[in-house]
Amino acid sequence: MTSPLAPPDRLLLGPGPSPVAPSVLDALGKPVIGHLDPEFIRIMDETSEQLRAVFRTSNPLTFPVSGTGSAGMETALVNVLEPGDVIVIGVNGVFGGRMADAAARAGAVVTTVEARWGDIVDPVQLGNAATAANAKVVALVHAETSTGVRSPVDQVRNAIGPDPLLLVDSVTGLAGIPLEVDGWGIDVCFSGTQKCLSVPPGLAPITFSPRAANVVAERKTSVQSWYLDVSMLRKYWEEGQGARAYHHTAPISMVYGLWEGLRLVMEEGLETRWARHQDAGDFLQDALTELGFQMFARKGYQLPQLTSVRLPADVPDSLRGNLLHEFGIEIGGGLGEGAGKVWRIGLMGHGATRHNAERLIESLRALL
Amino acid sequence: MTSPLAPPDRLLLGPGPSPVAPSVLDALGKPVIGHLDPEFIRIMDETSEQLRAVFRTSNPLTFPVSGTGSAGMETALVNVLEPGDVIVIGVNGVFGGRMADAAARAGAVVTTVEARWGDIVDPVQLGNAATAANAKVVALVHAETSTGVRSPVDQVRNAIGPDPLLLVDSVTGLAGIPLEVDGWGIDVCFSGTQKCLSVPPGLAPITFSPRAANVVAERKTSVQSWYLDVSMLRKYWEEGQGARAYHHTAPISMVYGLWEGLRLVMEEGLETRWARHQDAGDFLQDALTELGFQMFARKGYQLPQLTSVRLPADVPDSLRGNLLHEFGIEIGGGLGEGAGKVWRIGLMGHGATRHNAERLIESLRALL
Repeated sequence: MTSPLAPPDRLLLGPGPSPVAPSVLDALGKPVIGHLDPEFIRIMDETSEQLRAVFRTSNPLTFPVSGTGSAGMETALVNVLEPGDVIVIGVNGVFGGRMADAAARAGAVVTTVEARWGDIVDPVQLGNAATAANAKVVALVHAETSTGVRSPVDQVRNAIGPDPLLLVDSVTGLAGIPLEVDGWGIDVCFSGTQKCLSVPPGLAPITFSPRAANVVAERKTSVQSWYLDVSMLRKYWEEGQGARAYHHTAPISMVYGLWEGLRLVMEEGLETRWARHQDAGDFLQDALTELGFQMFARKGYQLPQLTSVRLPADVPDSLRGNLLHEFGIEIGGGLGEGAGKVWRIGLMGHGATRHNAERLIESLRALL
Repeated sequence: MTSPLAPPDRLLLGPGPSPVAPSVLDALGKPVIGHLDPEFIRIMDETSEQLRAVFRTSNPLTFPVSGTGSAGMETALVNVLEPGDVIVIGVNGVFGGRMADAAARAGAVVTTVEARWGDIVDPVQLGNAATAANAKVVALVHAETSTGVRSPVDQVRNAIGPDPLLLVDSVTGLAGIPLEVDGWGIDVCFSGTQKCLSVPPGLAPITFSPRAANVVAERKTSVQSWYLDVSMLRKYWEEGQGARAYHHTAPISMVYGLWEGLRLVMEEGLETRWARHQDAGDFLQDALTELGFQMFARKGYQLPQLTSVRLPADVPDSLRGNLLHEFGIEIGGGLGEGAGKVWRIGLMGHGATRHNAERLIESLRALL
């Protein structure tokens, strides 16, 4: 192999990973210390503390799962579900479908509430389904990365009533658009590092409400996954659980990166960051509309950080290759139903700027 | 939080993570590119190619799982086991016991063949148990990180006959001591990056023989884990599987680090590296014996890369804290039965040198 490794410089405007701030890349290369070193425990505590601020929660059980966003999804589901438990899942894209798949593998009885791709799942329908099925858990996707739709998660608790656990995938939402874990009555929320946090992929921030943590503690069956078993993970991650008990070796360097990424979020201010995403996304969506692209997501529910557009008849999907190879810009193709017909353009985290939107629009103009 | 993140400089002589080479830390900080970028696919292919060389296998299905070594363990088990399948597991320390736990969670019928901690599991006993139980899978730990024991894995295939799948945990073995996946008839072997590969924790190299891959392909039930389902992961990682299908977003930066760590192994030469570990380990074990420490592992089966010693009566376990805080040297305490009574000292990967052994011995002399 030819050394050194020399990945090209890309402007990452796809559905993730997003551009990584230089100080986060620096943090990844800091000296590795032991996973039980008192200094690392301090970094873990600070990471959890910052995650609580970004999730807007006071949940003690808040930490990064040692895997990517999909590991966060699986951790959320397999810990609160036991075989035979009923879960109602809103499905309006790939990631709702993925939750249904993972929940079924955990032995749950799954009811899906489907919506057309590009539309939202109606909270009232979710509520009706939850009542009809006497659901233990209701789950939905806050920011559907496959379609660019923002779900009105703030209305879901009211629609489902106080009893079901509310489980939310905010892989693409966290730190990009408003998310209020405590304020919206969310019990379990998971995310990924490589979207609006602007940290490389590899960790899945997750938070459990005391009620959800209690459901895990009172399980009758073992969690099917040893690796993702929160009853053991909490002994390592949660403050006040006594001596930190070894479970698995935490991904030290990735935790460094997340620590620094979260610090940047706090330094900017969460609300300022949300506003920056909204501004950049609005700017891009106006410009794309002018170029003849049609928004894929329903009006009023478009994510600013992930813009999904239908291709005009004269724009081939292969243009993405030209963008990558001629301009060094990555954007994403459609997933599932949208393959070949849809583009997904991310303005996430460090990359959520009008300047980046302009670079993309200018490059597109040059190619069209 | 105070920026920049400033973890202290430690000499990592515990059971992992091991010292990371500067060029690996550099690789972690390289620009992030997309997980479907053609350049990243090339880096993935080269990573798999180098992993095959280090595992000594020609298995096409060889890749890093997006989690730590324990995720590799779970991937190995949950993919080849279906509910009701019989597995025989050798247990002579924490990590054999962990496999038994994870296999039971996958619904397998588990028989353990136990040995005293510090001893090996007798291959003949494993074979007898496998025959008696008509086992589908036989599993054992190549290098028991909790006790410092090296298992005679080379003798196991002969003892169990041709039928059972042979599954080996070589988290601490790979790239430190001889391991011949093809030569020893191993069907599934997993490892971790933070031991003798000297890459930070976060990925779990794994390899499946064509026979094991076929067992996965012909399953009657879904793999219980969505995240670790090899039937989907192979569409992303395995060459010749057509267009690389998105499953989850790979931990890009960690793959960079692994690529570079593997390159360093190949540059040194695998056999030279094994010899370096043996030399450093022998040197340390002689010096510790002189100091009054007793080897925990049975004579003739001591791992050179992980030395487990019983503390003399006049050496308190708390001395580890002095080593860390006064000399910046991390060593590990005992796990399970060995807690408080045993130390575990790693000379792994980049850290496997006589010089490091001397630094430890001198510091110990100063403290004693």
